[in-house]
Amino acid sequence: MRWKDYFIPTSKNPPKDAETVSHKLMHRAGLIEKISSGIYTFLPLGLRVLRNVENIVREEMNKAKGIEVLMPSIQPASLWKESGRWEKMGKDMLRFKDRHGKEMVFGPTHEEVITYIVRQHIKSWKQLPLLFYQIQTKFRDEIRPRFGVIRAKEFLMKDAYSFDMDEKGLDISYQRMRETYFKIFSRCGINVTIQKADSGVMGGKFSEEFVAEGECKELEVGHIFKLGTTYSQNMKAYFVDKDGKEKPIYMGCYGIGIGRTVAAIIEGNYDENGIVWPVSVAPFKVIIVPVNMDDENIREKSESLYSELIEKKIDVLIDDREESPGVKFADADLIGIPLRITVGKKLKEGKVEIKIRKENRSVEVPLENSVRWILDFLNK
Amino acid sequence: MRWKDYFIPTSKNPPKDAETVSHKLMHRAGLIEKISSGIYTFLPLGLRVLRNVENIVREEMNKAKGIEVLMPSIQPASLWKESGRWEKMGKDMLRFKDRHGKEMVFGPTHEEVITYIVRQHIKSWKQLPLLFYQIQTKFRDEIRPRFGVIRAKEFLMKDAYSFDMDEKGLDISYQRMRETYFKIFSRCGINVTIQKADSGVMGGKFSEEFVAEGECKELEVGHIFKLGTTYSQNMKAYFVDKDGKEKPIYMGCYGIGIGRTVAAIIEGNYDENGIVWPVSVAPFKVIIVPVNMDDENIREKSESLYSELIEKKIDVLIDDREESPGVKFADADLIGIPLRITVGKKLKEGKVEIKIRKENRSVEVPLENSVRWILDFLNK
Repeated sequence: MRWKDYFIPTSKNPPKDAETVSHKLMHRAGLIEKISSGIYTFLPLGLRVLRNVENIVREEMNKAKGIEVLMPSIQPASLWKESGRWEKMGKDMLRFKDRHGKEMVFGPTHEEVITYIVRQHIKSWKQLPLLFYQIQTKFRDEIRPRFGVIRAKEFLMKDAYSFDMDEKGLDISYQRMRETYFKIFSRCGINVTIQKADSGVMGGKFSEEFVAEGECKELEVGHIFKLGTTYSQNMKAYFVDKDGKEKPIYMGCYGIGIGRTVAAIIEGNYDENGIVWPVSVAPFKVIIVPVNMDDENIREKSESLYSELIEKKIDVLIDDREESPGVKFADADLIGIPLRITVGKKLKEGKVEIKIRKENRSVEVPLENSVRWILDFLNK
Repeated sequence: MRWKDYFIPTSKNPPKDAETVSHKLMHRAGLIEKISSGIYTFLPLGLRVLRNVENIVREEMNKAKGIEVLMPSIQPASLWKESGRWEKMGKDMLRFKDRHGKEMVFGPTHEEVITYIVRQHIKSWKQLPLLFYQIQTKFRDEIRPRFGVIRAKEFLMKDAYSFDMDEKGLDISYQRMRETYFKIFSRCGINVTIQKADSGVMGGKFSEEFVAEGECKELEVGHIFKLGTTYSQNMKAYFVDKDGKEKPIYMGCYGIGIGRTVAAIIEGNYDENGIVWPVSVAPFKVIIVPVNMDDENIREKSESLYSELIEKKIDVLIDDREESPGVKFADADLIGIPLRITVGKKLKEGKVEIKIRKENRSVEVPLENSVRWILDFLNK
């Protein structure tokens, strides 16, 4: 990608309401734009990170035999009345009537919808176990949105729902999700601890939270629940067991805040100059900085390096702006690209400078070896 | 993917409210599940097609220098008051007050939000032209939802917004989008015609609709608008021109209904046995049907073919159910997979049968050549 063709509105000043490092840096690095209290647009760079996190989540969920679906944001109130949560939910659930006067909600979670789908199609023990998941937009009317995307009103979430024959099956599904979550957060470059939690309006008997390490103690990034048979009994999601008896399905549910995970990654990966993305989620893996776009040799060598990296399918950004090297270096640090290739005065000796953002050190590499060097580094 | 590990609830009977071929087949092939009037879940197979269409749209938008962002569903009413559309929008725009009494809307479109973002950051002619797009969930409270996902309340849309210095620039951006749309629909296997249209609440001077060929005359699948300076003037999105003068930015907007496109593909690609997916959007490119899972030789050969295709990164489904060949063949036709590999009685002669869904004809291919044959067919 060429910086001049792209949209990365970096800034020196964090927003006034920003209390956390991630909120400040997400704004300053041009990842998000506030539209209203607790409501954000993901700008191009932020969206790239969001998609990278999504893909890690998707890969690990698929490995755990998760089946992806996409449920609607808007749900009929009738399902919430069946489950018994219509009365239990507080003011953070957005309720409204459609133009025909039918009561609807903007779903803050999807136990009701998935249970409705399962009861239509699952009749026998032979069809179990099942694990469904989606990556979908949710809305909770937070009384006090804060910390940027960490406690937002509208947010992207991965929510998963397991369906088992009995409590033993549920335990196995739960354990598999628990392990999957550790893999996901590790791949995202986040250290998490797990702690017992209150199940709240989800109900069920047992739940655990995944809390990311970092200064901001808010950051539950994941929450997993053993729901048992509360929903299946209330909503009549039964199956016929091996012995011919009708039984309620055992359920679990498993959430990851995708936007929150992006913020948590920053909380654990930054320095005084900006974000330090782990390679796995970085919006671009490499940024090429030609120190002077008017110098023909510098421009040509930068362009050919850029083309070569694209050919090797490396996500690369070239800073082709007519800005001073100082501005370009500061922005490259701020947006946290893992490798910065400076094409400048060392070119006379046939070399480029490669700065490793995380280690804050540079190496000089002969131009002709630079692509090999970059590939080796990224594949480490 | 293994059929038994997946969730493809096929059925013989279309829903009672289904009037169009695509609605009937999307239900029967297990692509969607109705949750409420005009509100659907995309089941696994439907979601795979949706994602394939999304990716085609994304690739072509990126080629046209589109910059992807993700704007929120929920928007503050204040922006709609600024643009002047708060009064103009009818009952299909969902309006509500948040818990603090602030007026909000579930955005049926995003001119206001993108103009708000642009006016924050775009100050000079040097930053233009720009083209933003997103693929995002919208809600319109249709008075009479029908035709399944064609006229749904909640739907996935690609919406794009161009920003230019003058009318000439807008004409160029508009023309580029027009060409991009033809490429997108062609890659999706849809024949479209273009016709002049009413700009409705979008405003602006000129708009054209892309209408997919097929029996269902509803299916506008795309709509492109020259908006001019209506939004930029009302919302004060100005830039400084080369001659130092402040001028309003010229805008265009460009929509594609992603779910509608899926339905339109079906309207143009089916026969009496079910859907006939074009290879480009098919949820799986190949389905392997072992006629008898109890026959060791059939099972082993099917499994090794399955592994080999996965290794070649082909999206392949294996029908490992203990169902009769008749049931499996009917389902394979219904869900419309381009190539069906039958592993059965011809195995004695070292052959498998490959059925080309679109041409409704079969060829016998030696097992050892079958992967090569499939790759050649798919790359055609």
